[in-house]
Amino acid sequence: MVEEIAKKTKKASFKLQNATTEEKNDALLKIKEALIEEKDKIMEANKIDVEKAKKNNLKSSLIDRLLITEKRFNSMVNGIDVVIELPDPCGEVIEEIRRPNGLLIKKVRVPIGVVGIIYESRPNVTCDATILCLKSGNSVILRGGSEAINSNKTIVSAIRKGISRSVLPEDCVSFIDRPERELVYKMLELDEYIDLIIPRGSEQMIKAIKEKSKIPVIGHGKGLCHLYVDKDADIDMAVRITLNAKVQRPGVCNAIETLLVHESIASEFLPKVQSELEKHNVELRGCEKTRKILTSIKDATEEDWWTEYLDLILSIKIVESVDEAISHINFYGSKHSEAIVTNNNENAKKFLNYVDASTVYHNASTRFTDGGEFGMGAEIGISNQKLHARGPMGLKELTTYKYVVYGNGQIRE
Amino acid sequence: MVEEIAKKTKKASFKLQNATTEEKNDALLKIKEALIEEKDKIMEANKIDVEKAKKNNLKSSLIDRLLITEKRFNSMVNGIDVVIELPDPCGEVIEEIRRPNGLLIKKVRVPIGVVGIIYESRPNVTCDATILCLKSGNSVILRGGSEAINSNKTIVSAIRKGISRSVLPEDCVSFIDRPERELVYKMLELDEYIDLIIPRGSEQMIKAIKEKSKIPVIGHGKGLCHLYVDKDADIDMAVRITLNAKVQRPGVCNAIETLLVHESIASEFLPKVQSELEKHNVELRGCEKTRKILTSIKDATEEDWWTEYLDLILSIKIVESVDEAISHINFYGSKHSEAIVTNNNENAKKFLNYVDASTVYHNASTRFTDGGEFGMGAEIGISNQKLHARGPMGLKELTTYKYVVYGNGQIRE
Repeated sequence: MVEEIAKKTKKASFKLQNATTEEKNDALLKIKEALIEEKDKIMEANKIDVEKAKKNNLKSSLIDRLLITEKRFNSMVNGIDVVIELPDPCGEVIEEIRRPNGLLIKKVRVPIGVVGIIYESRPNVTCDATILCLKSGNSVILRGGSEAINSNKTIVSAIRKGISRSVLPEDCVSFIDRPERELVYKMLELDEYIDLIIPRGSEQMIKAIKEKSKIPVIGHGKGLCHLYVDKDADIDMAVRITLNAKVQRPGVCNAIETLLVHESIASEFLPKVQSELEKHNVELRGCEKTRKILTSIKDATEEDWWTEYLDLILSIKIVESVDEAISHINFYGSKHSEAIVTNNNENAKKFLNYVDASTVYHNASTRFTDGGEFGMGAEIGISNQKLHARGPMGLKELTTYKYVVYGNGQIRE
Repeated sequence: MVEEIAKKTKKASFKLQNATTEEKNDALLKIKEALIEEKDKIMEANKIDVEKAKKNNLKSSLIDRLLITEKRFNSMVNGIDVVIELPDPCGEVIEEIRRPNGLLIKKVRVPIGVVGIIYESRPNVTCDATILCLKSGNSVILRGGSEAINSNKTIVSAIRKGISRSVLPEDCVSFIDRPERELVYKMLELDEYIDLIIPRGSEQMIKAIKEKSKIPVIGHGKGLCHLYVDKDADIDMAVRITLNAKVQRPGVCNAIETLLVHESIASEFLPKVQSELEKHNVELRGCEKTRKILTSIKDATEEDWWTEYLDLILSIKIVESVDEAISHINFYGSKHSEAIVTNNNENAKKFLNYVDASTVYHNASTRFTDGGEFGMGAEIGISNQKLHARGPMGLKELTTYKYVVYGNGQIRE
């Protein structure tokens, strides 16, 4: 059954790959209209999922993620307009080379083909991910979590209804509507039909998918991010950035988990930052040196340096130099977002060059690692891998390229 | 032992990543000098490998690949000068975005980190691959075939001697000098230290590596390439290109294996191309329709359409339309290099758009898919995957990017 779906989706992808920008935008508009038409059905189906989740005693944070409120529905639907307005990445000539033998070589941006999205909980992903895939010319196979299956089914059905009113084939968007986990494993084997897997969910889920998949995977991974306050930092700025990076939205991947502080500034900086963080109920855990200054806080253990709290907890370590900060980050970090606060340009340069992460910041909060904040308009995830795409992934990162070579009879000597 | 090596190589990679172009070029020059100094030792070691291979009754083509002749040694060493002259891809600012909040976001090209190269037979790969990795700022872990172990050891030892005379750490280049296959499997698990695996060898070897690896793999894959002669082809050009694509070097991945011919031109084209191909001892195998025209040739079976002969054999199929040619290619092809010969621009456009391959040609031989022919100066392989790099991989394809964000205290609202 999964193989049949994948085959159909692949077939549809050739038509989609060669659709014009106008054709794709028209399909997106029709999807928006169909979603609005089917709103009541979608809300009804969502109610069923939420009731079931409550019966099954799912965590309240998960139930909240599952819930489609009026506001969330509108933001999902209006998000389509945003993507319609974004420039189409396909067809861009990235490079053009004229060879001495007369060959004209064009490196042209093209869709990847078929993208498999494996995700949990939030049903708006069904729509958001589909819209980004279609705009970038990719067919999509969706596999949502079983807890959201009714919501997802109605959303996909509306999406396909919308597409059927455009020139694109409905099979550009497919949905695996049965809950068995084996179907995911089957999907991960179909490298003939699926070109890329994007998993969105827990670290364990992404790890399991990477290990099982024969298809390349770009995971929206863990974010164990650090802020390093250098000896030459502006202390007020450092306090402000620490607070923002930890407190503004602690449950997201670009929030910080560990604060590194240069020893020569620690006794002045730490009490100030402590008083601000504690106003926001942040629990602090410190290394031995830190606890000599902040005597009331808990001990930070080796495990803390490895932990993505996703919560109002912050571990603090005092370091002797920018080099020690860099080593700590490169050892414990998740290659996501890392920041230095300093007015010392030499140290900043060292930090930005030597820290191995998708995004490195000088005097700014790590919270900016986001497709919207980067001006991409929308994002399908944030990659902390190094190949193909790094950091926020927008439309361009959902494409590959192809060499198109024009000759007039050239042969190789 | 492999883990120790990988750890050291990773450590050295941070220094290398931040080396200037001058420092890298100086190291390459010193490697060249050391290789010339150690030439006798290298030739001596190669003799031992070749003798052993003869004793073990290795195929003569393999023994030939193993052999370092005077000419091959010189071309290996002179290849270093070519790479020294190539522009350094690292540090290039790919994009620069100034955000309304004042953040300056630079998307900067950086090395990948540590590249693992797993290869067979040809000892010159030891040098060629190392030079490309170093110039692009990547450390490298080499794992050559056991049949070339003595040659490879002496080459690596000369390379490391050269590096030791530069400011770069010797551990930028490591070699796994024991023959056990388990060491390769161990290597494929070290995703903490190795960022990319490039296998060069047989299809089976690449497949096994892809299945076992926890590290992203870009394989220099199979090349099952086609030439489609359209109804509006210039017949002389079509004959010339067929001959070149099949005969000029049949054992390489960008040679063609199957010829697709439009039915309306077949009876004129096929006898002409047959007479030329048979002058070069090419064995022809045809579909039923083909054999009505070329009555003396063998039958082409389903298996033929799947076969990369790498030899003087060509399968021929008559098709009814450009669409049938495209379907055949997308079904049987290896997404490598595909060509159409036609004077019909509409058919050409359709072919170039709809054929799913790293490189598509209009009126030129598939043999041009090559880093040198594309003007890259050198290549580490040809990718027929879609992610990260497609087609010939040169220095730029050995890099990734990093977002470097400059602020003056920005926090996210």
